[in-house]
Amino acid sequence: MSNLDEIIKSRRDTRHFTSDAIPDEVIQKALQAGHHAPSVGLTDATKYYLIKSDEIKKAVKELFLDYDQKAANLTDDELQKLQYKSLKLEAIEEAPLGLVICYDRSVLNNFTIGTVGSNEAIKFSAVCAAQNIWLSLTEQGYSMGWVSILNYYQFKQLLGLPDNIEPLGYFCVGKPATNYDNQPMLQQLNWKQKQENPIVEEILVSTPVVLESLRGTKQSHSSDSIISEALQQKIDSKTKPTSSLGVLESLAKQIGTVFQTLEPKITNPNIVVFAADHGIANHGVSAYPQDVTRQMVTNFLEGGAAINVFCKQNNIALTIVDAGVNYDFPTNVNLVSAKIGKGTQSFLHGSAMRKTELDLCFAKGKEIVNSVFETGCNCIGFGEMGIGNTSTASVLMSILLELPIEDCVGNGTGVVDEKLIQKQNVLKKALENYDGPNDLESKLAYFGGFEIMQMAGGILQAKQNNMLILVDGFICTVAFLIAYKMNPAIKENAIFCHSSAEQGHQKILDYLNVRALLQLDLRLGEGTGCAVAFPIIQSAVCFLNEMASFESAGVNSRQL
Amino acid sequence: MSNLDEIIKSRRDTRHFTSDAIPDEVIQKALQAGHHAPSVGLTDATKYYLIKSDEIKKAVKELFLDYDQKAANLTDDELQKLQYKSLKLEAIEEAPLGLVICYDRSVLNNFTIGTVGSNEAIKFSAVCAAQNIWLSLTEQGYSMGWVSILNYYQFKQLLGLPDNIEPLGYFCVGKPATNYDNQPMLQQLNWKQKQENPIVEEILVSTPVVLESLRGTKQSHSSDSIISEALQQKIDSKTKPTSSLGVLESLAKQIGTVFQTLEPKITNPNIVVFAADHGIANHGVSAYPQDVTRQMVTNFLEGGAAINVFCKQNNIALTIVDAGVNYDFPTNVNLVSAKIGKGTQSFLHGSAMRKTELDLCFAKGKEIVNSVFETGCNCIGFGEMGIGNTSTASVLMSILLELPIEDCVGNGTGVVDEKLIQKQNVLKKALENYDGPNDLESKLAYFGGFEIMQMAGGILQAKQNNMLILVDGFICTVAFLIAYKMNPAIKENAIFCHSSAEQGHQKILDYLNVRALLQLDLRLGEGTGCAVAFPIIQSAVCFLNEMASFESAGVNSRQL
Repeated sequence: MSNLDEIIKSRRDTRHFTSDAIPDEVIQKALQAGHHAPSVGLTDATKYYLIKSDEIKKAVKELFLDYDQKAANLTDDELQKLQYKSLKLEAIEEAPLGLVICYDRSVLNNFTIGTVGSNEAIKFSAVCAAQNIWLSLTEQGYSMGWVSILNYYQFKQLLGLPDNIEPLGYFCVGKPATNYDNQPMLQQLNWKQKQENPIVEEILVSTPVVLESLRGTKQSHSSDSIISEALQQKIDSKTKPTSSLGVLESLAKQIGTVFQTLEPKITNPNIVVFAADHGIANHGVSAYPQDVTRQMVTNFLEGGAAINVFCKQNNIALTIVDAGVNYDFPTNVNLVSAKIGKGTQSFLHGSAMRKTELDLCFAKGKEIVNSVFETGCNCIGFGEMGIGNTSTASVLMSILLELPIEDCVGNGTGVVDEKLIQKQNVLKKALENYDGPNDLESKLAYFGGFEIMQMAGGILQAKQNNMLILVDGFICTVAFLIAYKMNPAIKENAIFCHSSAEQGHQKILDYLNVRALLQLDLRLGEGTGCAVAFPIIQSAVCFLNEMASFESAGVNSRQL
Repeated sequence: MSNLDEIIKSRRDTRHFTSDAIPDEVIQKALQAGHHAPSVGLTDATKYYLIKSDEIKKAVKELFLDYDQKAANLTDDELQKLQYKSLKLEAIEEAPLGLVICYDRSVLNNFTIGTVGSNEAIKFSAVCAAQNIWLSLTEQGYSMGWVSILNYYQFKQLLGLPDNIEPLGYFCVGKPATNYDNQPMLQQLNWKQKQENPIVEEILVSTPVVLESLRGTKQSHSSDSIISEALQQKIDSKTKPTSSLGVLESLAKQIGTVFQTLEPKITNPNIVVFAADHGIANHGVSAYPQDVTRQMVTNFLEGGAAINVFCKQNNIALTIVDAGVNYDFPTNVNLVSAKIGKGTQSFLHGSAMRKTELDLCFAKGKEIVNSVFETGCNCIGFGEMGIGNTSTASVLMSILLELPIEDCVGNGTGVVDEKLIQKQNVLKKALENYDGPNDLESKLAYFGGFEIMQMAGGILQAKQNNMLILVDGFICTVAFLIAYKMNPAIKENAIFCHSSAEQGHQKILDYLNVRALLQLDLRLGEGTGCAVAFPIIQSAVCFLNEMASFESAGVNSRQL
């Protein structure tokens, strides 16, 4: 046979061989034909193994039988299964020669031309060699059968192939016993008809490839919706199913929108802990003596408190503010003095602070946030310390959300049973005693809390500075609520870090229609919720900036 | 030219063409030659697209230029880079005809002969067609150039190819302007010399396939109660109200108890992602094609996936394991090869794997965990990647917890509405079809999942090594459940990192009577829940080791 067309059309996947031996020169010629197949980047990665041993053939046959049975089980059409089983799909033991055509993927360990788009080019070269060998054998009056029904892992094990050598299959080589009436065996046996002609189509138009329009750069002065949409597009282009990063995705979108960029960065994060004392603490509403406030401030300054440990762990700067602790601290560069007074007065029978003190709280809070902002911080967390301040916060919540005090009182840090009833009663009485004006400011001054009001002022300023605002637990959220009543837009910048076990907390979050990142039963304050949640916020930023897109990674997005 | 040998030896990868047009009958004859190439199982999956439009050629050329530059950047050898850049590697715009040879992987949706060992057989048929076409063109005095330096994702987009059509590359067709002195162009230009002869070796002996046995977990008992009490005392001595660090406290106690110390340290944390393919994926249970598994593994290796980003963020080592992906990865030191097979078989009508393969999975999983342990790691996270594996996990859950499949099937990563019903029905049918023995092992082999079983084996070994075991989402938790049935003591070492949105997950957590650290609506797998939760675990260790005690800080503990 000498005509290419004729050879190509006569080439058969052969499963029936005579017992004739194959002259060595036939094999050599065929392998030379394989050798002249393409070799991407001239890698010469194709390798050939010959098998003549009956024992090895027998072992390969066993592997085949195993997978052939598996294949039969894949159809539930009983007729199809029977028909399948009747097919002879190999001639491993009869064919005089076994050939294993392989490629050596270790060539990819070096710089290789033509594999940047897909390293499969290596494999394809070996397949081209297989086809050349097939044609050469056909021309010489011999043939080949490609056996792919094998567990390749075990096949490699059996043959002792090195890890980097990948076989295309087992090829049975010999003199054909039939030409299947010059058609594929599967057609001869009516398994299927081969199509008459190749399937060809001309492509007339191209779809422009959407280039990385999303790349980098600040988009200043664009409206939120444009940046939001672009962020959503960027998030959806990441190599993950849509929405599969859940809360991290909404967080990333929020942060990008706040900073008006597709590549947001958190810089110099800082948690500010505002400490102050509360006159109401003298009425048995707390499990701890008031003195603990100043002891804990000292503990903060010495680095021994939970917030110190978590800030250190997560590389967050920590700022401690004396907003009004009932103690004169020695001068300490690490303590920001913003003392309005030595604790508020008890609001049980009178005003906790004066209006001028309230104003001063807001001013001081803003000043402190501005000085943190000046360090290059764009993400600020708010925390607090103050024995008695859950009482103050509960009363403020009751006023702001117009809820009965019972719905707003929790057990603070450690108040249980009768103590809780006592606390509720004290606060109820305090609210009943109030006979001042009905405006919010008057009430804020009356029920007070130096640290709570400084936080509220600070939160408003953080929004002015377009900083991310990390909100801690119950008391901090009450401060946020005060600020929110003055400027609802602060919500855009706020991340609620932890939903505390304090019962009122979830109610405020519901009112604000927000969800906190963590639910770890923390009820410590100090900004610990912000510090522990911070890595989660960083995770959102990191995935947005660093994950590959479907396009850049060459990953298929969803199937239709 | 009429002699096959001569044609084969004259065939050139051509990048220099004359401007001569190609007569239509030349193309037709060449495509007929392609059509007579092998077609596995007579699938006729090879498809051809012709491109004559200058505009499309120009757009393809741009894609080439982009990736050609990328390729050039892959070498640090400046001389090599210069030489590379001087090479003409395509003739996209000059060649009169562009041909795109493709295969249609949707044929795999039906029962197909010859693809049980690897569905790549489909692809190989198309490559054989390419070689036939090349030879036919050569015989007719024409030639072809194979351009593989393309981002295939963009290439498909540009040509508007359906998702199921996969191109082998862009083929430039025309009349050659040179025969490169009858040798490959790269050889003519001294890039490399082609080897004189094919690399051939005879295999003389076979290695029996080694089977390893499942099982083997001894129980170690230590008196945990003494250390637990001491840990509780230490936790309560910290400067905070009792229990106010909530979950962090129980976590600290657990970790101290596992490591039998009051000062536990996490060393060399490592997340191991096991990837494998699932035969069931061919039954429309996933929103993504199977190929995405290998694409994502490549993405892991290139650092672009979510798990890469989070591990990097939190200083966690990442180990990627090929447990049985339906693809041959090139040798890569960063990929642990533990391939059991090229994906499991579909369990719809037969066993996903054999018992020996199941045993091998457990053995491999243990081996991998041991090698991670040897790096000094005492905290290991388990993650997975495998298109179709929520289906496998759901079925396994249904068996292990004796729940109806409807209670165990969620929407995986992106299956909705009717697809969900379809998924449920397929899995229900698969469960009904099972008629094997009633023991757990038989069922595990039948419903399989190479990566799930390797994880289960790995988890058992992690307990043996007394490592902390970080459990990710739904699929990982099913692997944990399998291991738990074999050794319930593993729960002592387990930290459940994330409670996923997949409906079955919470049910298993309830069954195990455990609570996950995070609820962030993640449903991505890959171990992302472990990586994102890791800083929280560190927070627990940090507060236990670093916080001051009431005594050391001089802080009053609670008031009487």
